[in-house]
Amino acid sequence: MKYLHAMIRTNYPEESINFYTQGLGLNLLSKRDFEQGRFSLIFLGEDENSPMIELTHNWDEREYSQGDQFGHLAFRSENIYKVCEQLQSMGVAILRPPRDGHMAFVKDPNGISIEILQQGESLPVQEPWASMENQGSW
Amino acid sequence: MKYLHAMIRTNYPEESINFYTQGLGLNLLSKRDFEQGRFSLIFLGEDENSPMIELTHNWDEREYSQGDQFGHLAFRSENIYKVCEQLQSMGVAILRPPRDGHMAFVKDPNGISIEILQQGESLPVQEPWASMENQGSW
Repeated sequence: MKYLHAMIRTNYPEESINFYTQGLGLNLLSKRDFEQGRFSLIFLGEDENSPMIELTHNWDEREYSQGDQFGHLAFRSENIYKVCEQLQSMGVAILRPPRDGHMAFVKDPNGISIEILQQGESLPVQEPWASMENQGSW
Repeated sequence: MKYLHAMIRTNYPEESINFYTQGLGLNLLSKRDFEQGRFSLIFLGEDENSPMIELTHNWDEREYSQGDQFGHLAFRSENIYKVCEQLQSMGVAILRPPRDGHMAFVKDPNGISIEILQQGESLPVQEPWASMENQGSW
């Protein structure tokens, strides 16, 4: 059995694609519009053989509810500081800054919690992250 | 950037491990108990290099809420009928039976929607699945 993808419903397809590609460095693998059903399916990931994030955009938008049963999606980065700098430059709040050079949390444009982990050993502790406080929840 | 895992909170760790291992055929990769924080982290997947499902079990259990912003986790199976038979034999309701030999939906013990897809071409349409009706929602 192969794990294929996690699906998230979005009312913000462009912002979400931007978050996962420009922000997290995934590739936009496909975007298909279903005229009759009035929805689009968007797949993001390293490549078609890696597990992906599927975004479902219903054109007739409605409000979705958040629950805490589903926790987060996690990604591993080669340089957690660079990813957080890039996200911050895009206006994404770094809710749990990488004070320890190891772990950070943000939210995607749909409010889904995203964990970012440093590959291998933690990076040396570094400002401005080291003294940055937590914001909100994740 | 590498997608690592999707995290789900569970009050039913044993039932959940059983669902993902006996039901879906994933491997139990690790289970760590954190005495001081009173929680356990359980990782399931093909192997340590594949994306995983992380289960978080807080020993002081509380009720979690379901939202529809997060949609589902999807898996690809070599034989969708065998997986559905196995799940059914474990008492799991097949909410969207694989009538088309291609797609089925169930829920994990935590109420998380699970999509099961047939690898490659759809299997020939086959009873009892072909005439089995949908149940509930997913």
